[in-house]
Amino acid sequence: MTQIHPVILCGGSGTRLWPLSRTALPKPFLPLVSEQTLFQQAVARVAGDDRFAPPIVVAGAAHVGLIEAQLGDTPGARLVIEPAAKNTAPAIALAAALLPEDAVMLVCPSDHHIADPAAFRAAALAAAALAREDYLVSFGIAANRPETGYGYLMRGEPLPGGFAIQQFVEKPDLARAEAYLASGEYSWNGGIFAFRAGHLLAELAAHRPEMARAVREAVAAGQAEGRQFHPAPAPFAAITGDSIDYAVMEKTARAAMVPADMGWSDIGTWASLAEALADTADAAGNICRTSGAGAVDLDGCEGVFALTDGPRISAVGLKDVCIIISGSEVLVTSREGAQRVGKLPGASTP
Amino acid sequence: MTQIHPVILCGGSGTRLWPLSRTALPKPFLPLVSEQTLFQQAVARVAGDDRFAPPIVVAGAAHVGLIEAQLGDTPGARLVIEPAAKNTAPAIALAAALLPEDAVMLVCPSDHHIADPAAFRAAALAAAALAREDYLVSFGIAANRPETGYGYLMRGEPLPGGFAIQQFVEKPDLARAEAYLASGEYSWNGGIFAFRAGHLLAELAAHRPEMARAVREAVAAGQAEGRQFHPAPAPFAAITGDSIDYAVMEKTARAAMVPADMGWSDIGTWASLAEALADTADAAGNICRTSGAGAVDLDGCEGVFALTDGPRISAVGLKDVCIIISGSEVLVTSREGAQRVGKLPGASTP
Repeated sequence: MTQIHPVILCGGSGTRLWPLSRTALPKPFLPLVSEQTLFQQAVARVAGDDRFAPPIVVAGAAHVGLIEAQLGDTPGARLVIEPAAKNTAPAIALAAALLPEDAVMLVCPSDHHIADPAAFRAAALAAAALAREDYLVSFGIAANRPETGYGYLMRGEPLPGGFAIQQFVEKPDLARAEAYLASGEYSWNGGIFAFRAGHLLAELAAHRPEMARAVREAVAAGQAEGRQFHPAPAPFAAITGDSIDYAVMEKTARAAMVPADMGWSDIGTWASLAEALADTADAAGNICRTSGAGAVDLDGCEGVFALTDGPRISAVGLKDVCIIISGSEVLVTSREGAQRVGKLPGASTP
Repeated sequence: MTQIHPVILCGGSGTRLWPLSRTALPKPFLPLVSEQTLFQQAVARVAGDDRFAPPIVVAGAAHVGLIEAQLGDTPGARLVIEPAAKNTAPAIALAAALLPEDAVMLVCPSDHHIADPAAFRAAALAAAALAREDYLVSFGIAANRPETGYGYLMRGEPLPGGFAIQQFVEKPDLARAEAYLASGEYSWNGGIFAFRAGHLLAELAAHRPEMARAVREAVAAGQAEGRQFHPAPAPFAAITGDSIDYAVMEKTARAAMVPADMGWSDIGTWASLAEALADTADAAGNICRTSGAGAVDLDGCEGVFALTDGPRISAVGLKDVCIIISGSEVLVTSREGAQRVGKLPGASTP
């Protein structure tokens, strides 16, 4: 049986998880949900399973040190270093150009949490089967709340193991999100994809020919260095960046989706991290995480998420508040306000 | 005209203002409401006014250094150093024993805020006039909310410039506090008193003779050292401590009160400090105080009180929350919860 090639993208900045996530140490490389970092979890999710080939990691030069350290001696792993940040379409195309035409690639963000890896792998197998039939396949994440922060996929005609995609929907307002949830026909677009490498490049050449050409040139003139691959900077730098959704998925006639109900979270905000950690909460829904000399004392609190790397946190009478201490920064946000953390002045400092 | 002798008591621990107020640096010695500390404000309130004599400060040995520094060269000031903490009755009696029998003493806590010092001085004059007639006079603080954290004074027959006290009431429950407020007959017992020194000692001798005897002995065997007076430790240490309310005020037949509407606050909690600072709030009722490298960034907050001596505070979407950073302690409390801060584990650490 042909193996599936995991492609792990390390592009996100995660400013909404400031002050823990910073430019120099962004979200994928933090141990947010477990002892492992989100990146290490993404690698582990497809490791030790013969159905999956070793991963290809795509990342910027700034994070090579972190990735080499966190990859450790993962057998056969490769690392593609983007000469510039150009969004997901060029990053995915780089990996595709390094794979055989008939290889099936499974594109995974490095900064998501998946509580049920077995369900993830089952969905990956279904997606790979459709990708081998030259569908461009997106994971349709089971929606469990009227989320306004994600795009949605509307399912169309059934396909083996999935559905055609009837429609891509941008982030909706609350009323529409509630209607989508009630209809049962919509899933979240979680940014996880399966493609046959050659087919993805062919679709890119059809819809964004200059991008496809630049990626081919960057790979042809690139340099391998151990397990690292450095595409040529000049052609890559000339690319006008775009997401894989805009560049290809919303344009192709072969878009498909596989349903995936796997305890997924993009850990997009402190509130969603608190939700992902809900099974570690006390009876009042409080979650405390300490490192270093950190300690947390709570009195009459409900739904508080407290995280500190040093100073003691003492909290009284709070409800649904996140308190995050990292270095010399102290963030206190309501769960509803957590979406806006990335806009704070502090989140723009290195 | 005979001068009034201010007696400033420095006994409170102020644990509810932890982590700023600590055993080593308690509340009176912190610049909470202005550039001056509460103690300095208490001294300044009666300074530069011929109607008031220089102050007598009564405090424990642990705080002599702070007091000497904060008193500076206040002309004529004296400092009585309690050999042990025995509550307010013995502290007041020490000062009384050091004054002429006919001196009128004005007893003031050192850790309260009074927004209108002129109204305070007017009430002090009225209280002193009654004290000269051998009334034991308490300030009846104008109540403006159904506070359950204070004792109340019920007014009785009118006297010149005040009223007899009909009844002393312990901290009431909310229903009773609301009834007191509605009736208009009750004031808060703010712990500010006027006595003729000899009369106070005579009443103490009548109601707590062993305490009065011990104080007399401690003063007789005490030692003056510059502006400091050290009562003899042995007799003072043997005293069973008590408040002036229990020891004398609730037992005398000569209890009186003068009404005082003077913007009083005991700055008992972070919430009450925020109220005392309300005129420095922004349009959304937020109050920020920084020292050192401290900074505060707020987004969508209302009624937030943020105070930091170093780390930046970033807050999003909070309502009526106090965030206090001091050294390596971070306190986050709802305004309602602020009463319970003194019970936190951190508040018991030195």
